[in-house]
Amino acid sequence: MAQKKMVNDITSMDVDFAQWYTDIVKKAQLADYSGVKGCIVYQPYGYAIWENIQRDMDRRFKEVGVENVYMPMVIPESLLQKEKDHIDGFAPECAAVTQGGGEKLAETLFIRPTSEVLFCEHYQKIIHSYRDLPKLYNQWCSVMRWEKTTRPFLRGMEFLWQEGHTMHETAQEAEDFTLKMLKIYEDVYRDTLAIPPVVGRKTEKEKFAGAEASYTLEPMMHNGVALQGGTTHYFGDGFAKAFGIQFTGRDNALQNPYQTSWGMSTRLIGAVIMVHGDDNGLVLPPRVAPVQVVIVPIAQHKPGVLEKAGGLYEELKGQFRVKLDSSDNSPGWKFAQYEMQGVPLRLEIGPKDIENGQCVLVRRDTGEKQVTALEGLADTIAGLLDTIHGDMLARAQKNMEEKTFVAHSHEEFLDIAANKPGFIKAMWCGDPACEDKLKEETGGVKSRCIPFEEEHLADVCACCGKPAKHMVYWGRQY
Amino acid sequence: MAQKKMVNDITSMDVDFAQWYTDIVKKAQLADYSGVKGCIVYQPYGYAIWENIQRDMDRRFKEVGVENVYMPMVIPESLLQKEKDHIDGFAPECAAVTQGGGEKLAETLFIRPTSEVLFCEHYQKIIHSYRDLPKLYNQWCSVMRWEKTTRPFLRGMEFLWQEGHTMHETAQEAEDFTLKMLKIYEDVYRDTLAIPPVVGRKTEKEKFAGAEASYTLEPMMHNGVALQGGTTHYFGDGFAKAFGIQFTGRDNALQNPYQTSWGMSTRLIGAVIMVHGDDNGLVLPPRVAPVQVVIVPIAQHKPGVLEKAGGLYEELKGQFRVKLDSSDNSPGWKFAQYEMQGVPLRLEIGPKDIENGQCVLVRRDTGEKQVTALEGLADTIAGLLDTIHGDMLARAQKNMEEKTFVAHSHEEFLDIAANKPGFIKAMWCGDPACEDKLKEETGGVKSRCIPFEEEHLADVCACCGKPAKHMVYWGRQY
Repeated sequence: MAQKKMVNDITSMDVDFAQWYTDIVKKAQLADYSGVKGCIVYQPYGYAIWENIQRDMDRRFKEVGVENVYMPMVIPESLLQKEKDHIDGFAPECAAVTQGGGEKLAETLFIRPTSEVLFCEHYQKIIHSYRDLPKLYNQWCSVMRWEKTTRPFLRGMEFLWQEGHTMHETAQEAEDFTLKMLKIYEDVYRDTLAIPPVVGRKTEKEKFAGAEASYTLEPMMHNGVALQGGTTHYFGDGFAKAFGIQFTGRDNALQNPYQTSWGMSTRLIGAVIMVHGDDNGLVLPPRVAPVQVVIVPIAQHKPGVLEKAGGLYEELKGQFRVKLDSSDNSPGWKFAQYEMQGVPLRLEIGPKDIENGQCVLVRRDTGEKQVTALEGLADTIAGLLDTIHGDMLARAQKNMEEKTFVAHSHEEFLDIAANKPGFIKAMWCGDPACEDKLKEETGGVKSRCIPFEEEHLADVCACCGKPAKHMVYWGRQY
Repeated sequence: MAQKKMVNDITSMDVDFAQWYTDIVKKAQLADYSGVKGCIVYQPYGYAIWENIQRDMDRRFKEVGVENVYMPMVIPESLLQKEKDHIDGFAPECAAVTQGGGEKLAETLFIRPTSEVLFCEHYQKIIHSYRDLPKLYNQWCSVMRWEKTTRPFLRGMEFLWQEGHTMHETAQEAEDFTLKMLKIYEDVYRDTLAIPPVVGRKTEKEKFAGAEASYTLEPMMHNGVALQGGTTHYFGDGFAKAFGIQFTGRDNALQNPYQTSWGMSTRLIGAVIMVHGDDNGLVLPPRVAPVQVVIVPIAQHKPGVLEKAGGLYEELKGQFRVKLDSSDNSPGWKFAQYEMQGVPLRLEIGPKDIENGQCVLVRRDTGEKQVTALEGLADTIAGLLDTIHGDMLARAQKNMEEKTFVAHSHEEFLDIAANKPGFIKAMWCGDPACEDKLKEETGGVKSRCIPFEEEHLADVCACCGKPAKHMVYWGRQY
């Protein structure tokens, strides 16, 4: 029967990392391709991971006073053109609606690639006094960007995300909020996804179209490639001026508010796959796993086994996301299936276990088995899930450190870029020309960010030899 | 100061119901107009109501095994054309994307007006055996329909909704599921929104493009106008055949599955406004109100008042959605403000109350005040919120009954249609020509639905006088 096929056909990550990724996305039924190139179908298991990530992020946002709203999905061309850098950055990758209701439109509408201008248009109408500030709005939606090369979760024509857009009374408050959201994003990475990202400021060349400063979170994938996995931006009052947003300040004078924006997307699912996954499939962090514990009855035809398994399900389901698989597939098939789906804990219960008042718990991340007393089982599981989270984070941290290299000279930089996949830490003079040169020489290594705590690795730029201004993380990206 | 303005400028509903509605939407800050005609900005207070409705519906869906997914927002023209009735029904109101990334597209993409065809395309790939059935998928998203006349929440070019699309092994199972979702929708109306809708089957003329049978929920607005406030559809195997969806049955023969779809939208917010609201503003059902209890300190400059109010806030916030307003606006301003926003319960606490170990609770729906002991306050409030829900439902029921009229003859039908806003119950022969005639004669009265329990009001059709087949609810609609 088709359902009984063993899950043994995932390409090894060492053989072909890209194919390994695609195999997992397909076989774990996270996403499927659709008839529109670059648009995917988020299948139930993949979407459930996103819902768990969403719930976690939404709670953190609301704790700091952020409110959810929803803006239109289309932007009139004239509105997008109001801020010059912004339209220059986004116009080339927009999808354009030119007909509606069978008629040609007087003005082209762009499907939102991001919504700064829509928020600004609204803020212009509702912000009048310093008493109206801050405005801390966020929306959960999808956006569309006409990408040439797409890959599920990593780069899509349409993708799901959240975008926060805030307005503040002072530059200081807006700058602080930009960093506050960056910290919340980092907490999501570390505390929820068990992923340690490198965090820092983007260079002038790499910052967001129209922003004064952009900050980024860059986790390291298992193969040494980085992912721009979340950004926060400080805009100063540039957009506010372009959109005529003014308020009466405490001094009774008219002034422009200061703006931020920040976004994370379903790319986080891509990061989870590529940071934690292994050759047997997904390895999901317990806090976002749609199923945290799967119960597999052993010798389930024997009297009492299914009853006991059902009892454990009832006992645990209030506290954990549990699944009981009592289908007639073999235990071996089930083991492989849930390993491939990355379920953090497998609970085996058979006649002998029942006799001894115990069960067997098997960790997905290490494969470790432990015989566990049924008494106090919920506490044991809760503790074990936390341990798994901590161990996954530590392993990801170790992998990132092992794949981070220091280049003291231009020669060393090129050598690492050619031979050692991962981050390169190197000094930089501050000239975008050096970024261009290194990217060209290495076939794609770009500046990732300037970390908040820079090390002093050398006195001169690893590209041009002129005096260094910053230590920069460099790397290839998805 | 602008913030101190009293909220006293809502048009009376008897003077101008449409203006009353618009005033509430604007002044309660539920939604604002955007620069794109027909697209609104869902503001925080309006969106929070939607989030509460969503959470309630999503829980009910998951309880019956529905899984969430996400499909692309655009549909290739060739895909939309696969089912003839469907394309005929929707093509005239589609928005068309003809350019992407600066280039003309080889094939036009329509922004989804609904997603039947996208689900079918995916189901065609993943359904192979009866073991793969049923598939019970739902998505939360926005859709776009090129509407000429739009009104916030009621009819928008873009609106937020959920759309469920399911596939079943047998016709019976699919028909049953269509009615099961209809019942869940009715539960949402009655148990969550405190609204009693009329429920029944759409006539052939009014059913969904491509469906075999459509069912509808039609709540009655305060002014006697109905709202098509949710539909479920049974498709038979028509789409499955058009899309080549086949599975191997238990008898080992290839067959087509049977399909349903069902959707409710932010139109529910419009229903809440128009069923429950009054001349002082919104009246929100407790189970979806973003703020269920607002605490207003009285004489808050006096020692101990703010402390006590803060203590009550801490005590209640774990169990209810509570807000404490300790701003320097006057109590009178606050009373009017939260009345306008429809907060179900106001809790007043002043120096004398504190002395007596009591507070004052004021119901938004009736204006009723009651002095309440602080001891056991949470229980009192929980009970009172349930009472408010029940009373709101009963009042809505009474209003609907008072605005439901029986027409035994053609003359009576036209008289009621001209003079008494509301539902008309009347017999019908089953001929669409009579629907057309009645609509034309009355300037817009259409068949709403055939209820599941039909009364026998007369032997003949209230239009043509031929033998009657059904009792039908008729009415004007938003």
